Amino acid sequence: MSGIVTTGEKRLVLASGRAHPELAQQVSEELGVEVLPMDAWDFANGEIYVRYGESVRGTDAFVLQSHPAPINTWLMEHLIMIDALKRASAKRITAIAPSFPYARQDKKHRGREPISARLVADLYETAGIDRMISVDLHAPQVQGYFKQPVDHLMALPILADYVSGKYGQEDVVVVSPDAGRIRVAEQWAKKLGGVGLAFIHKSRDINRPNQAVAKRVIGEVAGKTCILVDDMVDTGGTIVQAADALMNNGADSVVIATTHGILSEPATQRLRDSSVREVVCTNTLPIPEEKQFDRLTQLSIAPLIARAIRAVFDDGSVTSLFDGEV
Amino acid sequence: MSGIVTTGEKRLVLASGRAHPELAQQVSEELGVEVLPMDAWDFANGEIYVRYGESVRGTDAFVLQSHPAPINTWLMEHLIMIDALKRASAKRITAIAPSFPYARQDKKHRGREPISARLVADLYETAGIDRMISVDLHAPQVQGYFKQPVDHLMALPILADYVSGKYGQEDVVVVSPDAGRIRVAEQWAKKLGGVGLAFIHKSRDINRPNQAVAKRVIGEVAGKTCILVDDMVDTGGTIVQAADALMNNGADSVVIATTHGILSEPATQRLRDSSVREVVCTNTLPIPEEKQFDRLTQLSIAPLIARAIRAVFDDGSVTSLFDGEV
Amino acid sequence: MSGIVTTGEKRLVLASGRAHPELAQQVSEELGVEVLPMDAWDFANGEIYVRYGESVRGTDAFVLQSHPAPINTWLMEHLIMIDALKRASAKRITAIAPSFPYARQDKKHRGREPISARLVADLYETAGIDRMISVDLHAPQVQGYFKQPVDHLMALPILADYVSGKYGQEDVVVVSPDAGRIRVAEQWAKKLGGVGLAFIHKSRDINRPNQAVAKRVIGEVAGKTCILVDDMVDTGGTIVQAADALMNNGADSVVIATTHGILSEPATQRLRDSSVREVVCTNTLPIPEEKQFDRLTQLSIAPLIARAIRAVFDDGSVTSLFDGEV
Amino acid sequence: MSGIVTTGEKRLVLASGRAHPELAQQVSEELGVEVLPMDAWDFANGEIYVRYGESVRGTDAFVLQSHPAPINTWLMEHLIMIDALKRASAKRITAIAPSFPYARQDKKHRGREPISARLVADLYETAGIDRMISVDLHAPQVQGYFKQPVDHLMALPILADYVSGKYGQEDVVVVSPDAGRIRVAEQWAKKLGGVGLAFIHKSRDINRPNQAVAKRVIGEVAGKTCILVDDMVDTGGTIVQAADALMNNGADSVVIATTHGILSEPATQRLRDSSVREVVCTNTLPIPEEKQFDRLTQLSIAPLIARAIRAVFDDGSVTSLFDGEV
Amino acid sequence: MSGIVTTGEKRLVLASGRAHPELAQQVSEELGVEVLPMDAWDFANGEIYVRYGESVRGTDAFVLQSHPAPINTWLMEHLIMIDALKRASAKRITAIAPSFPYARQDKKHRGREPISARLVADLYETAGIDRMISVDLHAPQVQGYFKQPVDHLMALPILADYVSGKYGQEDVVVVSPDAGRIRVAEQWAKKLGGVGLAFIHKSRDINRPNQAVAKRVIGEVAGKTCILVDDMVDTGGTIVQAADALMNNGADSVVIATTHGILSEPATQRLRDSSVREVVCTNTLPIPEEKQFDRLTQLSIAPLIARAIRAVFDDGSVTSLFDGEV
Amino acid sequence: MSGIVTTGEKRLVLASGRAHPELAQQVSEELGVEVLPMDAWDFANGEIYVRYGESVRGTDAFVLQSHPAPINTWLMEHLIMIDALKRASAKRITAIAPSFPYARQDKKHRGREPISARLVADLYETAGIDRMISVDLHAPQVQGYFKQPVDHLMALPILADYVSGKYGQEDVVVVSPDAGRIRVAEQWAKKLGGVGLAFIHKSRDINRPNQAVAKRVIGEVAGKTCILVDDMVDTGGTIVQAADALMNNGADSVVIATTHGILSEPATQRLRDSSVREVVCTNTLPIPEEKQFDRLTQLSIAPLIARAIRAVFDDGSVTSLFDGEV
Repeated sequence: MSGIVTTGEKRLVLASGRAHPELAQQVSEELGVEVLPMDAWDFANGEIYVRYGESVRGTDAFVLQSHPAPINTWLMEHLIMIDALKRASAKRITAIAPSFPYARQDKKHRGREPISARLVADLYETAGIDRMISVDLHAPQVQGYFKQPVDHLMALPILADYVSGKYGQEDVVVVSPDAGRIRVAEQWAKKLGGVGLAFIHKSRDINRPNQAVAKRVIGEVAGKTCILVDDMVDTGGTIVQAADALMNNGADSVVIATTHGILSEPATQRLRDSSVREVVCTNTLPIPEEKQFDRLTQLSIAPLIARAIRAVFDDGSVTSLFDGEV
Repeated sequence: MSGIVTTGEKRLVLASGRAHPELAQQVSEELGVEVLPMDAWDFANGEIYVRYGESVRGTDAFVLQSHPAPINTWLMEHLIMIDALKRASAKRITAIAPSFPYARQDKKHRGREPISARLVADLYETAGIDRMISVDLHAPQVQGYFKQPVDHLMALPILADYVSGKYGQEDVVVVSPDAGRIRVAEQWAKKLGGVGLAFIHKSRDINRPNQAVAKRVIGEVAGKTCILVDDMVDTGGTIVQAADALMNNGADSVVIATTHGILSEPATQRLRDSSVREVVCTNTLPIPEEKQFDRLTQLSIAPLIARAIRAVFDDGSVTSLFDGEV
Repeated sequence: MSGIVTTGEKRLVLASGRAHPELAQQVSEELGVEVLPMDAWDFANGEIYVRYGESVRGTDAFVLQSHPAPINTWLMEHLIMIDALKRASAKRITAIAPSFPYARQDKKHRGREPISARLVADLYETAGIDRMISVDLHAPQVQGYFKQPVDHLMALPILADYVSGKYGQEDVVVVSPDAGRIRVAEQWAKKLGGVGLAFIHKSRDINRPNQAVAKRVIGEVAGKTCILVDDMVDTGGTIVQAADALMNNGADSVVIATTHGILSEPATQRLRDSSVREVVCTNTLPIPEEKQFDRLTQLSIAPLIARAIRAVFDDGSVTSLFDGEV
Repeated sequence: MSGIVTTGEKRLVLASGRAHPELAQQVSEELGVEVLPMDAWDFANGEIYVRYGESVRGTDAFVLQSHPAPINTWLMEHLIMIDALKRASAKRITAIAPSFPYARQDKKHRGREPISARLVADLYETAGIDRMISVDLHAPQVQGYFKQPVDHLMALPILADYVSGKYGQEDVVVVSPDAGRIRVAEQWAKKLGGVGLAFIHKSRDINRPNQAVAKRVIGEVAGKTCILVDDMVDTGGTIVQAADALMNNGADSVVIATTHGILSEPATQRLRDSSVREVVCTNTLPIPEEKQFDRLTQLSIAPLIARAIRAVFDDGSVTSLFDGEV
Repeated sequence: MSGIVTTGEKRLVLASGRAHPELAQQVSEELGVEVLPMDAWDFANGEIYVRYGESVRGTDAFVLQSHPAPINTWLMEHLIMIDALKRASAKRITAIAPSFPYARQDKKHRGREPISARLVADLYETAGIDRMISVDLHAPQVQGYFKQPVDHLMALPILADYVSGKYGQEDVVVVSPDAGRIRVAEQWAKKLGGVGLAFIHKSRDINRPNQAVAKRVIGEVAGKTCILVDDMVDTGGTIVQAADALMNNGADSVVIATTHGILSEPATQRLRDSSVREVVCTNTLPIPEEKQFDRLTQLSIAPLIARAIRAVFDDGSVTSLFDGEV
Repeated sequence: MSGIVTTGEKRLVLASGRAHPELAQQVSEELGVEVLPMDAWDFANGEIYVRYGESVRGTDAFVLQSHPAPINTWLMEHLIMIDALKRASAKRITAIAPSFPYARQDKKHRGREPISARLVADLYETAGIDRMISVDLHAPQVQGYFKQPVDHLMALPILADYVSGKYGQEDVVVVSPDAGRIRVAEQWAKKLGGVGLAFIHKSRDINRPNQAVAKRVIGEVAGKTCILVDDMVDTGGTIVQAADALMNNGADSVVIATTHGILSEPATQRLRDSSVREVVCTNTLPIPEEKQFDRLTQLSIAPLIARAIRAVFDDGSVTSLFDGEV
């Protein structure tokens, strides 16, 4: 039979955008692989240029980008990097967006709005991804915005291990800032060994729907260490009000645990001014020096991402990292 | 300049599957247009055959199908009808699925599951729709599973008008069976003139997450007429338990209001055996004789669908029907 | 150069729908591989749920489903299983539909009809298949409804081996029930060692086209063992009439050989009541106990399917199984 | 409300490739519309250039091309013309290929063959058509190779009217050259007022399948005027043998009626040398002077195409032209 | 026949992003139509939100965005606006990007680069445009990056009219800053009534290719008013050097005429410090107060865009605006 | 875990169209692999038939076709060969079009023209390619017409090595026939060791744009050996005029070096009649006996193509062959 035969081989490469080089560095160390060399710079009018420093032909390419502000710039860089990988003949391209852009715009609240989270999924598909890895999507339905497989990682084990190590000896209760997120709080409670659960009810004085919103605490929090959990902290308004409500209800202290520390203005000020004992988040997003403060702890998401990459590369069976039960 | 010139004209036709002919009949009467004649029958092995009885060339075609059990049969019939419209040169095809199939399978709860709601959206797209009309999708994110425009109708005004007319003089409170659905209950409360609000908290004794679920009522219900609202009633287990919890908390009576009356076995028996005063639903799904019972009231969704069709056909500005604020 | 290198490896998995577990079991035994564990059940309203019991990440997945009545249910289950494989990161997905659904609706006989066989091909493509394996498509053009490669298997060798072994010593003639299918009968005649050929001409008294159809036998059948061959037997009306015509023309006996034993009502009764000596079919479709009868022989198609799977997995050169000359 | 409002208007334009200007001229006269002016010429290396002479913006464009030899050139010209229409903002593009290229390559006879008819359908789709009009496709399944609507016209009424007018007083029988095409012959027989039917059976001495093919006539032809019907006459070998067989069986005379007069070498010689009384075809393909001969009659397909265009433009109900019953 | 019939009507709406409201205002005045009301703002992390203030159902929507720095933000806003139009059922969407983003990245200069201009075209297609309008694309091939029709406008008539009016009495020569752009300069020369032509040859001393680049003037410029024409002026380095070379060759004065006044840092300073007599550009891009200077004249592109919109809306024959000869 | 595991293996096959068998033979020898056996012939009406002679299942298939006149035939054959590979389950298909068809029609010069180069790219994509290899595209932007990766090879090293070997001792100057192609000439000058550069300016007497075009030589050519370089020589008109202009300017001799020797009528005559010393081209296109002449030298492109194939097959890092710097 005609033909030349050779044995297939797979090569993993890790590319990184410019938004959060520390995270890429950590992932690269976890994996034991160098970050792919890349030239990237901006033209005077903001147009981005990228070029890889070595061949990616036939590789299993993982391209990591974080999405802090200016988020559209980093998203566009991510898409351009994917285009360059595709045209340079990478065999498979996995985008890693630890903090998925526009995740909150996942439905039309009213007519004549976009569904930007679906648009972003489509943009990634158009640029040429074969799969996506993300962490704690705001709504799990966003996974369905992709035609491709999505590996949806959970930061909970990382956050909970830290919290458990530091506060495990105290009288802990897990608090959801919102009735709609109780399921996640339940997973936390289970992970922390079956501790109690509470949540903040944004009652509008429940009997007068048009009134201003009040914060009512459901569950026992008096005298307890409250672990207030949410997927993201943006400007910090809601979460600080929730913490205040807990303290007003006799909580001993409040620890905030969140995956995505967006910390837009004036989050840092608000948190610093609050009575919150500690804020724990991961580094899915970079937190610049000036936004950091004493009581803020940032845990690395890199080990989780590195394990996911390795599992994807090795076709390993790793449902425990994904989607799944704790 | 070469060419023959004529004035554009639009013709609306309404086709209907066999799952729920009464609904099609009602919509047709509201619109003042006959249902498009169609031959449809099943081969011995279950394969479906359809053929339209008159030309649909160049029409603005609306093709209505309800999706009760056997749901896969009716879904497939819908897709085949769309294919036939497309190949017969309909100009624009709008599918109407008042009760969207597989709407509850809108995310992966665990690894190795499908996202069937996205699959169904893709099947409709493949068959050839230009747009979709549906009523009260289980999760609003399902709208984003479509690339095409979706007109997402709300049954609330129809249900609330009826409830208001019948129970408006009593001391009414709107109850959500679930913390996650309070927003809808708020819209109800507003629509009913600012009445009170309550919800059932599926506490797992809130402090022992692994315990069996208890139903705790949040809000004042004692001595009141409780309007218990949900998007669908399937086997009726959850909603009857919620009603019981309300009665145990001193409610005067419980009225269930829901859009989609699926009423799978043993819903009818459960509801009949319960203390529920009335069950109000729409006819997005047909309810066969043997599943009906005295205290069940089915309101027609046909006027809403007809208005939506007319708005789509006329390019009218009708955000009030869609997505939107009450 | 940066990167981690490893040797590629392929893993074959075999998934099966619920329509015909015996066939899956046989194929699995032929291959020497367990059927992939899967949870599958129906919701009260007929919606199907599936979940695989172990990882399929990176696998070469073959997903087998038979399509008896209720055909739309089994088709939908097949599509959902494919979606789940895709989202669980199977590397390549081959659907196996031994008896292709809606294969007879392969053209528009009249205006305003669908072309459902093309629609079904598109639905499979949308769900996410990379290739299709099927057996004896009603019209070979259906292969062209797919953009993807189709491996089109022929059951003839299996059927002919059996017939040859049992009737090879008799004076055999191969009969086509229809002028349009003589080519297949020729392949049979060749395979049986160059025996004679006949066919039934559905003459409408050939000179009066509008008259009722008569069955005229072309070729020598008197005193012979007639092997009446067709791709499928559905309600059995046509084939039993053909057998009668042969007997009326002096045939010694009639043996029916067919790939797809649909046997819709009242096929079993008709065949049982007929003078047919034996009905031989394969198990591309399951035949429930109550449809079986003494003179029915079902041969397993599993060895053929298993060899095709193996050939696809191994990239073997196996045109002999496909499309091709006997 | 913001916006400028105007009344929609439709303009039909008719463009034509260079393969068969006479047909375009005839269609244009039937429609009462000029053929769209177009520059078209070939570069020295065979690359084709086209440019329309006036605006087609917003038009309902019909683009006609015939496909004689050199067929690939005319196919490519057709595709390029469609691209130019699309980029010049035609609103809707209907390709008209009276004699569909590669229609006979509609399946894989053996492994490792293309399905070129599907490929051609895909090329048209890629170039940008919204619909296709064709006449007497070799296999009706080719319609299913298109995602878009296909208007499938039948030349039978045109041919049969001519035949009926000229030979209607004689003792006529309709003959199919092939068992597989009897259905079409039946439509002819019906159209000619219920005359008799016969066909040529390509028996391989029916009892010795591997022998050379003999032509056996089924049905009464002695003393009759045989109307031998087929979809196309290419090199003429088969049809002339069929005519000979009829004469050998005592036919009075043989008239050949066919839609597509391909007449590749040496068809003209063969037909001229034969005893055939007349060959009737349409002008779906041009027949150059040197291929014409006394007994050849070419009927214009233009009125049929013009009526189809008009029906498509006017959204008329014209199933009678299409697919359908005679 | 069933159906409701009405006369088609078209409504034009004009939406505008936030990058350059003055241009939208001018276009709206030219058209005599209000800009569509829209809410648009940025979340704290840079995510953009938009919502239209009135119905766009069934409209012929034109959505204008300029693309100055920060270019990725304005591009993303454009895409989101398109998504919102699509989901709100606009009938046709035409994007207007007067200064096409990433137009200069139209090819791979070296391996492992992206082709960002093609990526941007694909992003627009994915978001949902039906057509694109742009002005003076850097390379005309970019038009071919779109599957959809592109109306490619030329600013030359606007610029040349101004130049002609102001300098027409002087001894004018048109100068191309680059050998590759002489064709455009020829169009200028023709438009200015057949004046002379010159160009700058970036000779690398023509005989020593690796040497630093020198600017050599080809053509007669001494004592003349040089109209130095280019598609864009970004940081101004090249064009100011060209102007210097002209002055060094005895030019009387130099007037720069360009379509896109990007004027990135330090263009304004460079131009202000140069001997250039006047810089004429259009307002495809906004020029903020601080970048303006005495000798800068910005002509409005709005009349050209408005005429193109009107032509697209009216299906007018307007090749003169597009692509074409002056 | 269920499943059968095996080690992946890759097999390279090389298929070739009928346009230029010598080139395929040379490439096959370079690679050390037989050309895949294939039956290919034309039907009487020009329809092409192909079938591969052995299995291509799972292969990494490279399919080479040259595109001389009749170019549409060879293009169509290429597409059909790709379709057959795809349907025969080749794993990856790389088309090799050394001389890309319709490359010169890469933009709309005027309204109502096609962009045929984009159309051709789309046709290849539709037929089923995974990647494209081509040599010296007329405009590098054509690479962006593909969604897939394109390996864009440069013939310059092959041509320059020959020229350097033969004329390196003389006083050489590289000449571009056109101002727009100076960049390529610069690469030549660099490759030849830093020799001088000149170009032909198609001045229309630079000061009278509407006059007939004159050829003006820019740079020093007197007494030198001019290497006149271009991507293609079609009818030879332009290049012979350029050579004449060089001789008229005192050049010692002129050698033409070009990648694509199209040599359409009357190129051979023109070149033979000219004073050109030698014409050097590659064999991306076949040159039939009757077009050859004494002073014509054809260098083989096969080693370059073979190296590219090998690099693609081996996932080698070979940017040096592609796009890139000399």
